[in-house]
Amino acid sequence: MIDSTPENYREGLEYARWLDSGDKLARFREAFEIADPDLIYLDGNSLGRLPRQTAGRLSTTVTEEWGRDLIRGWNAGWYEASSRIGDMIGRLVGAGSGQVVVSDSTSVNLYKLVMAALSLRPGRDRVVSDVLNFPSDLYILQGCINLLGNSHTLHLVPSTDGVTVDLSVLLDAIDERTALVTLSHVTFKSGFLHDAAAVTERAHQVGALVLWDLSHSVGVVPIDLDGWGADLAVGCTYKYLNGGPGAPAFLYVSHDLPERARSPIWGWFGQHAPFAFDLDYKPAGGVSRFLAGTPPVLSLMALEPALELTLEAGIERIRQKSVSLTSYLVYLVDTVLARLGFRLGTPRDAMRRGSHVSVRHPEGYRISQALIEEMQVLPDFREPDNIRIGLAPLYTSFADVWEAVDRMRRVVSDGRYQSYANKRHPVT
Amino acid sequence: MIDSTPENYREGLEYARWLDSGDKLARFREAFEIADPDLIYLDGNSLGRLPRQTAGRLSTTVTEEWGRDLIRGWNAGWYEASSRIGDMIGRLVGAGSGQVVVSDSTSVNLYKLVMAALSLRPGRDRVVSDVLNFPSDLYILQGCINLLGNSHTLHLVPSTDGVTVDLSVLLDAIDERTALVTLSHVTFKSGFLHDAAAVTERAHQVGALVLWDLSHSVGVVPIDLDGWGADLAVGCTYKYLNGGPGAPAFLYVSHDLPERARSPIWGWFGQHAPFAFDLDYKPAGGVSRFLAGTPPVLSLMALEPALELTLEAGIERIRQKSVSLTSYLVYLVDTVLARLGFRLGTPRDAMRRGSHVSVRHPEGYRISQALIEEMQVLPDFREPDNIRIGLAPLYTSFADVWEAVDRMRRVVSDGRYQSYANKRHPVT
Repeated sequence: MIDSTPENYREGLEYARWLDSGDKLARFREAFEIADPDLIYLDGNSLGRLPRQTAGRLSTTVTEEWGRDLIRGWNAGWYEASSRIGDMIGRLVGAGSGQVVVSDSTSVNLYKLVMAALSLRPGRDRVVSDVLNFPSDLYILQGCINLLGNSHTLHLVPSTDGVTVDLSVLLDAIDERTALVTLSHVTFKSGFLHDAAAVTERAHQVGALVLWDLSHSVGVVPIDLDGWGADLAVGCTYKYLNGGPGAPAFLYVSHDLPERARSPIWGWFGQHAPFAFDLDYKPAGGVSRFLAGTPPVLSLMALEPALELTLEAGIERIRQKSVSLTSYLVYLVDTVLARLGFRLGTPRDAMRRGSHVSVRHPEGYRISQALIEEMQVLPDFREPDNIRIGLAPLYTSFADVWEAVDRMRRVVSDGRYQSYANKRHPVT
Repeated sequence: MIDSTPENYREGLEYARWLDSGDKLARFREAFEIADPDLIYLDGNSLGRLPRQTAGRLSTTVTEEWGRDLIRGWNAGWYEASSRIGDMIGRLVGAGSGQVVVSDSTSVNLYKLVMAALSLRPGRDRVVSDVLNFPSDLYILQGCINLLGNSHTLHLVPSTDGVTVDLSVLLDAIDERTALVTLSHVTFKSGFLHDAAAVTERAHQVGALVLWDLSHSVGVVPIDLDGWGADLAVGCTYKYLNGGPGAPAFLYVSHDLPERARSPIWGWFGQHAPFAFDLDYKPAGGVSRFLAGTPPVLSLMALEPALELTLEAGIERIRQKSVSLTSYLVYLVDTVLARLGFRLGTPRDAMRRGSHVSVRHPEGYRISQALIEEMQVLPDFREPDNIRIGLAPLYTSFADVWEAVDRMRRVVSDGRYQSYANKRHPVT
């Protein structure tokens, strides 16, 4: 970006500030509550920040829609909210309207879609995923296969480096035995970005279905479900979409999928006429047949102002900034942190990564504890040695990246991380 | 309650006010937002009123726990909330601690427990319920049976009067072929209260499991899951528990149920160590193994202040007032409304009903429209002719009941309901 610079200029804070001065999305930072300006928040890939509009909008839902309008709130917007907000997400994932709804958790939605997919491919006994997929996704797959009497083999494509999956190995694993291919579009730990178009194409060549988990890509990576020809997708809304803790998840069912693809959970919100109270279930048309019970309205409504921000910023500009942020962090890892024992746990090729970067260090756990406790830096830690740094283009600045790296450098160079115990995150 | 009264005294507003003057729960009405004091809200059995504390508590969760503490909110209470709030509900349903969790919708929870129950009784091919059960519950059962290859027959015990189910007929339907008995403890339309202890005992005599849907009884009817020896239960929290629209549901799994009873949905919140990110699923111990994905935290936290109110009031006092309210309404139906073509759609025996009363009229739909549009009365309507009147002891007064009946009387006696079209609730 700058042709000639003083020595080490690009390693300094001045350069970060210069990058910030050209940031077309800089004003969006003002749209979020920044309670503590000294805190560098790098976990927007786990829980996005609170948009300033959310508290007021939620207060309106609580006080006016619930408190004043009472049951009438259902006819004044709640009942349609799953579809209306689903269509907003549809614009972020390349889905024409009527293919996305918001309800339930990612795990429950994944379960519904996996069961539907497997029932559409009865003669096939293989499910393909990879070892980098989010464990809950793999658990759901294991549960489905168990429920079906262990009729399928779950084939997990390996990773030779713990960071990437070789595309040719993945494509070779998808064959005529394969009922379903399901992957995290961006992997949760290493941030590896799959070639979704190529995987989808290969799956369809051999007659398999494809289900994408967009949890770590939605809102930061361009997604083109209709263009890819994807069959199914799910995703979480509390990460880069800033919907709040446990915000309800979305699911996508392509218009091209036959209507006989059905949810195993026949709840009334997926019934064609829920308020007729017929005793026999008849599924709704379209994607609504994958709804189940009553959605959590307060959590659902909190999502809308957050989505408006992402839609206003535009996914192309967000991706541009995301690539700049991650590239800048990779540069600083190489030039500042590598000599202290850090190494990159995320692909170097920006086109093959999402918006978070894992920085590995043998003392990663203790370093992350020191960053949290003493240095006003909030990353997260993932076993065995990943300090995971989420860069949320709507509110993360280049100066944040510089500061975080500088504090990581200090924590290791002065040895202060050594005062932290090496015990891991409490597990139940 | 009064030995000698002037003629028609008990039909007048004075008597209602006298009843209110002796109401030990009267002060709880002040704990709720009453935006419009002229509106008589009689749909607390669909959506309970907003407790005054809720907006502030939710605001704290949003602004401080999410906005300020960010991801640290998970370790500061969110992660434990499903179990902590589950135990609060446990106190209302007679469940010792560690048997109730809150998460997902009632339909999804019912699905999980039905699938678990059927897998525990592999040699049996019958599921017993009744025609008065909530349709979504029947849909879920139909879906489970469909998924299992139509291996079970769903036997719905009939109702001869559309109001009650004969206990002896029900008990006779439960036999050695029966895998599962599942019923709404209080039925959604007629408010009929099942004899849960007798049904549970019979089911266990023949080796069947029992699953109670407590949606219309929790918070208003004493429930003794442990005492009955119930195996499983689910329930909704947005009715008499006042948790807010779509508030997450609860599920109960008895300590006595074998640990091999498993959820079909193997999500990470039901994993024994979700943050270890192992690739293989291993269920958590106890009821937590029936959790699936990340719960909707905002909706979940809104539930807590509401539950505190019910716990403070005490279920015995609530039930006493509930019986008084419904008995008073039944009396007014008989003495004031019967001559206008209304008839009772709810059991006369207070011990066999919950806290809502259905009042039937051939023009019920148009009458309910007139009540809503012109008379500041909000009941709901259930096909074909039920005006359903929910009496929530924490905020419904005897004067409310009198006023509502008086307005119903006026709407019919002056014929104004006839200006309303006879079209039904829009169905999708």
